[in-house]
Amino acid sequence: MLQDEGLERAVAWFRNQARFEERFAAAIRQSFDEVFDGQRTGRYRIEQLGKAEKTYIGTKVEIVVQDEFGLQRGRRLDYLVDEQEVDSKWSMTSGAWMIPTAAVGELCLCLTANDNRSEFRVGIVRAGDARLRAGLNKDKKRRLNDDGLSAMTWLVSRGDLAENLLLHLDDGIRDSILNPAFSGQRRVNELFRLVQQRIVRREVVLTVARQDDGPKRVRDARKALRGEGVIVLGHQQSHPRIAEALGLAIPPKGSWLSCRVVRDGGEGERTAEIAGASWRLARPGDQPEPGPAVYT
Amino acid sequence: MLQDEGLERAVAWFRNQARFEERFAAAIRQSFDEVFDGQRTGRYRIEQLGKAEKTYIGTKVEIVVQDEFGLQRGRRLDYLVDEQEVDSKWSMTSGAWMIPTAAVGELCLCLTANDNRSEFRVGIVRAGDARLRAGLNKDKKRRLNDDGLSAMTWLVSRGDLAENLLLHLDDGIRDSILNPAFSGQRRVNELFRLVQQRIVRREVVLTVARQDDGPKRVRDARKALRGEGVIVLGHQQSHPRIAEALGLAIPPKGSWLSCRVVRDGGEGERTAEIAGASWRLARPGDQPEPGPAVYT
Repeated sequence: MLQDEGLERAVAWFRNQARFEERFAAAIRQSFDEVFDGQRTGRYRIEQLGKAEKTYIGTKVEIVVQDEFGLQRGRRLDYLVDEQEVDSKWSMTSGAWMIPTAAVGELCLCLTANDNRSEFRVGIVRAGDARLRAGLNKDKKRRLNDDGLSAMTWLVSRGDLAENLLLHLDDGIRDSILNPAFSGQRRVNELFRLVQQRIVRREVVLTVARQDDGPKRVRDARKALRGEGVIVLGHQQSHPRIAEALGLAIPPKGSWLSCRVVRDGGEGERTAEIAGASWRLARPGDQPEPGPAVYT
Repeated sequence: MLQDEGLERAVAWFRNQARFEERFAAAIRQSFDEVFDGQRTGRYRIEQLGKAEKTYIGTKVEIVVQDEFGLQRGRRLDYLVDEQEVDSKWSMTSGAWMIPTAAVGELCLCLTANDNRSEFRVGIVRAGDARLRAGLNKDKKRRLNDDGLSAMTWLVSRGDLAENLLLHLDDGIRDSILNPAFSGQRRVNELFRLVQQRIVRREVVLTVARQDDGPKRVRDARKALRGEGVIVLGHQQSHPRIAEALGLAIPPKGSWLSCRVVRDGGEGERTAEIAGASWRLARPGDQPEPGPAVYT
């Protein structure tokens, strides 16, 4: 195979960016969430979008990736990556990127993600004519052929996308949480009551609340759920320590995690000291009891 | 003309909403600004958008209007307005709304805006077959004919859209402000130095700064511009009082306004008391002098 210096430079540039896999993941998650516009619409899955919105996801990904990596605009194509012109191509299906005439023979940054499987992938390929299928679609775009797909250099061949929590709930639980007869606050309470020990991102809270102050809704949920021993941990103050002591995931910034606790009676389980008392995770059979009044 | 009870109910419903004109204006402004995505892209005009983004503006307007007025989704069309099915139709050109087959004979909320003229309009029409042109476009949509346009009930026939400030600057001044060789902070400093006595919305600061903390950039601009007597007033604390005393517009929440001041020497002009001294607006010939050190 012939060398392709431009390809090598673009690939090397991305691979040299700190935490590039995580940043591609965040850019794609952010793009999906912005187009869902969950705070205004309550939507959480691709199938709920209109045609114009599905098309627009590719544009949003292009913009967010450019911003995330501080890329300059190209003269002919979307980006300039280490002086190489690179076009950004999005597809909801891996392999189905559509290459316009202007990008034939050019470097294409090909991105895709599957929200159901919480996966994404990113590769770069030079979309030479011999690597494209013969048939044009109505926009005169062509798909990569097998040679084209084989020639892809994967920057991330199978990366983890932050979970779309609402998408992955049982239908019954999701319906309880999204009940339109409830107030936004009550829906958020239901979220943290019914979905425990899982990371809940800010966007999920906003989609459930249909209101704009996520942190305030979480603070009020803490009050509402205290009586049944459900605590909601964030990323600040003593919360990471409590989460770790109980053996739970530590919520990253802008996310929360709830769990039900009871006072420890020396059962030999993991415990956390909260406001001077010792607490453990409740087992399903434990009687509910009020949780700690204050845990900051 | 025959009565159309459905039309009358939908029209009356919107007209009964508090500040409905202002809220339509805000929804359209917000939609444009979100699609420009100025903080990430530095863009401020429709012509800078791609095709998918231009199409998406209509979807964004539909979503933001729904959210702003707390409208329910219709069963067949976009909204349910006082139990009437209503479809939301956006066009960049007044009169050019495209009516799909599904909306023929239905109520259509027709919105348009002109960012160059800072104007928008909103009307409702029942898009009966006789009110539509004969020719279908490739999506099988039809425009309203003259009868259709005459039948429009205007909710806002000529409303004021918040000014797209960057769009309306002289090219030379805008180029100085958006200079890509400057840091984001320096660009914001230039904005308040070169564009005085005009309302600067938060989105303008973000587009200029290409960073996410607008208020922080403004605070730092105050420090940078103090030496030349330029003050930047917001909507809080003593700022509305100072703006009013100087005869300037009072910045609404989330916006600012800058002006150059000098110490008053009893010239008989409007003055504002700031931190114990008396200040007036500088005239072009006044020597620059440091402004008040503190004005909160």
